[in-house]
Amino acid sequence: MNYHPRPAGEGLRTRVFQIIFESDTLPAKAFDIALIAAILASVLVIMLESVAPFREDHATLFYWIEWGFTVGFTIELAVRLYCLERPWMYLKSFYGIIDLMAILPTWLALLLPGAQSLVVVRLLRTLRIFRVLRMMEFVGEGRLLLGALQRSGHQIFLFLFTVFLLVTIFASIIYLIEPAEAGFTSIPTSIYWAIVTLTTVGYGDIVPVTPLGQAISVMVMLIGYSIIAVPTGVFSAEVIRSIRADRYSDEACPGCGHDRHEKRARYCLRCGTWLDEDTPDPNLEEQARDDEEGPQGKEK
Amino acid sequence: MNYHPRPAGEGLRTRVFQIIFESDTLPAKAFDIALIAAILASVLVIMLESVAPFREDHATLFYWIEWGFTVGFTIELAVRLYCLERPWMYLKSFYGIIDLMAILPTWLALLLPGAQSLVVVRLLRTLRIFRVLRMMEFVGEGRLLLGALQRSGHQIFLFLFTVFLLVTIFASIIYLIEPAEAGFTSIPTSIYWAIVTLTTVGYGDIVPVTPLGQAISVMVMLIGYSIIAVPTGVFSAEVIRSIRADRYSDEACPGCGHDRHEKRARYCLRCGTWLDEDTPDPNLEEQARDDEEGPQGKEK
Amino acid sequence: MNYHPRPAGEGLRTRVFQIIFESDTLPAKAFDIALIAAILASVLVIMLESVAPFREDHATLFYWIEWGFTVGFTIELAVRLYCLERPWMYLKSFYGIIDLMAILPTWLALLLPGAQSLVVVRLLRTLRIFRVLRMMEFVGEGRLLLGALQRSGHQIFLFLFTVFLLVTIFASIIYLIEPAEAGFTSIPTSIYWAIVTLTTVGYGDIVPVTPLGQAISVMVMLIGYSIIAVPTGVFSAEVIRSIRADRYSDEACPGCGHDRHEKRARYCLRCGTWLDEDTPDPNLEEQARDDEEGPQGKEK
Amino acid sequence: MNYHPRPAGEGLRTRVFQIIFESDTLPAKAFDIALIAAILASVLVIMLESVAPFREDHATLFYWIEWGFTVGFTIELAVRLYCLERPWMYLKSFYGIIDLMAILPTWLALLLPGAQSLVVVRLLRTLRIFRVLRMMEFVGEGRLLLGALQRSGHQIFLFLFTVFLLVTIFASIIYLIEPAEAGFTSIPTSIYWAIVTLTTVGYGDIVPVTPLGQAISVMVMLIGYSIIAVPTGVFSAEVIRSIRADRYSDEACPGCGHDRHEKRARYCLRCGTWLDEDTPDPNLEEQARDDEEGPQGKEK
Repeated sequence: MNYHPRPAGEGLRTRVFQIIFESDTLPAKAFDIALIAAILASVLVIMLESVAPFREDHATLFYWIEWGFTVGFTIELAVRLYCLERPWMYLKSFYGIIDLMAILPTWLALLLPGAQSLVVVRLLRTLRIFRVLRMMEFVGEGRLLLGALQRSGHQIFLFLFTVFLLVTIFASIIYLIEPAEAGFTSIPTSIYWAIVTLTTVGYGDIVPVTPLGQAISVMVMLIGYSIIAVPTGVFSAEVIRSIRADRYSDEACPGCGHDRHEKRARYCLRCGTWLDEDTPDPNLEEQARDDEEGPQGKEK
Repeated sequence: MNYHPRPAGEGLRTRVFQIIFESDTLPAKAFDIALIAAILASVLVIMLESVAPFREDHATLFYWIEWGFTVGFTIELAVRLYCLERPWMYLKSFYGIIDLMAILPTWLALLLPGAQSLVVVRLLRTLRIFRVLRMMEFVGEGRLLLGALQRSGHQIFLFLFTVFLLVTIFASIIYLIEPAEAGFTSIPTSIYWAIVTLTTVGYGDIVPVTPLGQAISVMVMLIGYSIIAVPTGVFSAEVIRSIRADRYSDEACPGCGHDRHEKRARYCLRCGTWLDEDTPDPNLEEQARDDEEGPQGKEK
Repeated sequence: MNYHPRPAGEGLRTRVFQIIFESDTLPAKAFDIALIAAILASVLVIMLESVAPFREDHATLFYWIEWGFTVGFTIELAVRLYCLERPWMYLKSFYGIIDLMAILPTWLALLLPGAQSLVVVRLLRTLRIFRVLRMMEFVGEGRLLLGALQRSGHQIFLFLFTVFLLVTIFASIIYLIEPAEAGFTSIPTSIYWAIVTLTTVGYGDIVPVTPLGQAISVMVMLIGYSIIAVPTGVFSAEVIRSIRADRYSDEACPGCGHDRHEKRARYCLRCGTWLDEDTPDPNLEEQARDDEEGPQGKEK
Repeated sequence: MNYHPRPAGEGLRTRVFQIIFESDTLPAKAFDIALIAAILASVLVIMLESVAPFREDHATLFYWIEWGFTVGFTIELAVRLYCLERPWMYLKSFYGIIDLMAILPTWLALLLPGAQSLVVVRLLRTLRIFRVLRMMEFVGEGRLLLGALQRSGHQIFLFLFTVFLLVTIFASIIYLIEPAEAGFTSIPTSIYWAIVTLTTVGYGDIVPVTPLGQAISVMVMLIGYSIIAVPTGVFSAEVIRSIRADRYSDEACPGCGHDRHEKRARYCLRCGTWLDEDTPDPNLEEQARDDEEGPQGKEK
């Protein structure tokens, strides 16, 4: 859900809102940078905690650092909600859900103790990194890429569907040909092998051992090697179109049909017709006024 | 063979035809979705059956589910043929062959019992997934991709031919250099290794062990890494050309030679000549009629 | 060296020349197809001979088949040289050298017996497949690709040079970091590892085991994954330019400067100026003649 | 820091400067080629020294060759600085730093003996190869590529940032799912695995063993296989734009707004307006002079 945050109408709350939600003043920028640094630091702590020697030596330290970050992010979210006009709408928006997911796991671990659940908790906490995605709103260049991705979405779906078909069929064929001892123990496992091969990853944990199986593998490899040209070609074409569409307008001149006007153009460069059909041509308006007021109006 | 299905001319058969072969009414759409769901479910069952623990626990269940799907698809094909004007033509068409291949294996397993043949049967059954390809006919965007693929077909053939030459030569060279113990036991096996390397899959089941063999491998890798640019570049160029060709007509104006008319254009935007040479210009026709009828015709 | 073959001027030799060197008559086409089939068959025999079980069972058969092909190709080359005006020039041309290389190894094996040298011989014989490259001369579409490759040659050289620099530096770094037991026994071996990683082949025969080594590996992988965009982008741009250059002339109209004329255009589509500056405008010539001959010339 | 080297103003120093820093005379070209050959030779020696059998057999030889190159490059740098107007500025420039880094390690090894430090020294010496980069200044074609890279820099940063996010999240998920015995011992190690998989390198040293882990791997592979289209598409579009920008000027005609003039154009091809706004139109100047001088000026 898209929710455009708006401040509750009071002095302090508006000021806090400007610091937390906007980024055009110095304190607001400082807050953004500090927040991203804190998120990266907390993710780094989670990563280090997962390394056995570190975890064993500094278990208590990691415990308190993690709680420090969780309390800090909880206070931040509370302040964030406090200064909003409609806090509930924010919590249901994309960034609100991510904010909540970043702190919930550690809190839930209090009610539901146990090593197993804690492990699951750790997974969700890493999603905290998504909070950094807010940066993306400020990067205008990302829009062009997303636009090109969206327009090539249908064709990329067709591509992935074809990949899915090819992978399923080749996986079934190799499952019949290769012995289970080579690792092809079931069709799902063979699908895993087929994707490892088609995407040219090639772990080598499951490899064909019979000549016929190797021949089938070779076909999967050559297909995977060649069809990567399809999404690349489609996306390249879309980016080129986006760059052009960004500079030139798609609409033809109503007067002469010329259709390569820059977007900033207001009159057709060939025949001088007014291009913006939604608003009246100021020249024509002036002329019309002139006509009404008579020739003496022109002298004004 | 391309066969455009047409209904046999009676009431019930026409109505069934519209449900099964077309997709513009609500029941027809429901049928399509149910059919695709059934196909996906039957493929899922085959996949699960291939997993050893599932197969051992639920052998009878899988047996009956598989027979249920086979009987269902057989009835569907019978109804499909029943409502067609020329059922034999359909059976010989692309989709007819796939429909038949989706049910034949299970039936053939009745006449030719034995574990070995059943395994082969399982392979062909997975081709049932091709039936979903019918969807593609409804996705208009796929045509642009297929058109670009077809036009770049000659160049992609040249590319694959070059790959074949490179692979054969490098496979022979590495076969001479590397000892058989490293896995390079024959030229065909070395070709398998060369394709694994050139396509950057890199399983690692056969790797060069001598410095000279590693030097040859490095050349194959760099070639494989670089020449992927060729099909990608060709296909990108074709997609860009397709997008443009989709909007602009290739034909030049017979009057002034201008050749960037949008496809919807009926008169040349520069000189006003009528562009569609197959049908007469309505203006000219009207004028001709005017000329015949005299000036009083115009007043009508 | 480029040598355009020309027949020696007699009846029989000219007729043989047309069959062997040209491909526009029925017997010439039949000869080409038969030759390519023979080449593919002889390569197939070499491949099968390299497979241990086949070699052991049919050693004599393979020996005689190989000699049959060698004698056949030798006779073919003799006939080829017989019907040429300048046979020596042909032997020094690209196709002449390949023709010679395809038969020499088996003949040399007579003078220099020994298993070792025979193995080297086998390698060169596979180059026989290059003879098929003659096909390429007949495929006009290949020229566009080769042209694009040539024009992007400088930039692809720069790319490969950068790859060479990156690979050497990262190989030296990883050689210092990783222990020799992990396989990084020398800088050349580390270069082999760096290219395996950068080209995303990833055999897995040499992998980093220390955290720092894995961090360096990750950098090499990300660089390799990203910079493949460079040759692809350059080549895509060149193909697009080639396609356009193929249709449109680059030269501007000497009259009005318009520069998007189709190559077949003879007069500027905007101002009507004669475009081909090397030959005189037939209209102007006619007019000039008219002027000389006076008005009565026009009536002729 | 960019420092454009200028010679100190005396005869000998200027002549030496022209040989060392420029490359338009015969001795200057000979010096450049000799220098690059010496650098490549010294790097080759370092590589051979790293190979155990060579090092053990020729330890003293390698020692003296390496000192020979170091003394040679030190003298070369001294001469380079001697003939410069501002040697200190050169030492702080990009090429000065590289020149220093190429010789410093061997000299430092005198003061700080010990095998360990020598190993570090060897690493930095390989950076000597960067000196060859000077070549690039002479290759004008490299600029187009660098320009396209710079302009697509923002989008490539966004791409790498997305890759970083995806890799971190998938690494955390797989760390929870897969057992430590499979190699997923910590989140950093899992990140290493995720990058090995996403970039389609696929060493196979760490592979998922559980069905769920294989499903997650498959997602990482498909994402890695598809998103490579993004930097490729962006860079392709930029190269195409660069090629066009290289030929055509971006600026519109101040007279009629036409904006596809070739860079060499001086007058608008449509309306004849003088395009170079920085310098006056010679025609207008002449005309102005004519007007001043009167009609007799024209006869001059």
